[in-house]
Amino acid sequence: MARKAPRRTAERILEASLGLFNRFGESHVSTAAIAAELGISSGNLYYHYRAKDEIVNALFAQYEQALGALLQAAGDVADVEDAWFFMHRLFELVWQYRFLYRDLNHLLARNRQLEAQFPPLLRAKTQAMHTLLAALHNGGALRLPPGGAPETTANCMVLVATYWLSFEYVHDPRRALEPEGAQSALLGGVRHVLGLLLPYLEPAQGAHLARLVQAYGADGTDGTDGAAKE
Amino acid sequence: MARKAPRRTAERILEASLGLFNRFGESHVSTAAIAAELGISSGNLYYHYRAKDEIVNALFAQYEQALGALLQAAGDVADVEDAWFFMHRLFELVWQYRFLYRDLNHLLARNRQLEAQFPPLLRAKTQAMHTLLAALHNGGALRLPPGGAPETTANCMVLVATYWLSFEYVHDPRRALEPEGAQSALLGGVRHVLGLLLPYLEPAQGAHLARLVQAYGADGTDGTDGAAKE
Repeated sequence: MARKAPRRTAERILEASLGLFNRFGESHVSTAAIAAELGISSGNLYYHYRAKDEIVNALFAQYEQALGALLQAAGDVADVEDAWFFMHRLFELVWQYRFLYRDLNHLLARNRQLEAQFPPLLRAKTQAMHTLLAALHNGGALRLPPGGAPETTANCMVLVATYWLSFEYVHDPRRALEPEGAQSALLGGVRHVLGLLLPYLEPAQGAHLARLVQAYGADGTDGTDGAAKE
Repeated sequence: MARKAPRRTAERILEASLGLFNRFGESHVSTAAIAAELGISSGNLYYHYRAKDEIVNALFAQYEQALGALLQAAGDVADVEDAWFFMHRLFELVWQYRFLYRDLNHLLARNRQLEAQFPPLLRAKTQAMHTLLAALHNGGALRLPPGGAPETTANCMVLVATYWLSFEYVHDPRRALEPEGAQSALLGGVRHVLGLLLPYLEPAQGAHLARLVQAYGADGTDGTDGAAKE
């Protein structure tokens, strides 16, 4: 049992850091605050992670792995309902690691490892969106016109998925990233990403998307979806 | 002549600050660095602006005024060529004040005045996009389907316009916001915002948009448009 202790502490440090980073923003959380949250000494924390950036990088690695597993499923999306749940899982993951997106540029400017690892991650997301569009096309759910549409559409899907939470945050900085706003923020993001596909969907699929939006209250009927109301 | 000196210095402080903020990010520029850039004393700078936030707020007021004047023109957009130049001017303005967008959430978290002023600015942009869509519709350039499309489309247009430079930056942090990348970044943004309208444009207008993209090299043919290439 004793042998497991170090790993358990390392995991607890990551969990506590993720919670604090998401709540206050990474740049406002010190390693001393993380140690205090866990009731451990700074020396103990230092034994596991030599600097805050090492914690950030370990959390990023977790995120990267979970995202990679999710993106694998892009090719299995055969209709708008599959796409809905795929996007929902994507936004759940972004929400879980929202500190990365809250101050993305600021993080990248200070962390060379993230600076190097984020571009390939965005490329993987863009590739997955192309795969998803092709799968919907092959499944007969959507008709993509020739020309530039798939490429700008895939880029815009990634951009909306990447910055939706920031956009919500700018509309309502005090509340948008608090836990009680999660469901509304996620659904707003899903609705807007899939809204980009609406003009290309077969009519029955478009109608099904409208039903999903309504059934899940993603049209902002709960009144907390700041950006979507405007 | 002597009476004009203070105002002239205040203007020079704003100009120099804007240049430094855009180049290094606002959080990495101190008031001492601004004074040094101008060859004035810290006391002289302090006489005009008591804190860096006062400079940020004065620059934001300039941006807000210029943006307000531009957004007035949204109702005059009758075809895709008007829309092209409207968006080009919008992205030029965002580029000119790109420090605001580079670390937007980080700025808002530290500056209460910006935190209060940014949401109305986004709402004004969203309203202008609705006006622009209606003007294109009335001009016969575009056909908007009933249902949620205009609302999610307008929101996505604002989101892409707001975060395009951040998106370019994340793809290529070392080069994307340097002056030599300006033209490519602007054109990529214009192309993606107007790409959101493509499925709704009348065929002749869609073809005209494709010609504009090609004529201006906005399809990334200069090879520096990181995000657009993927």
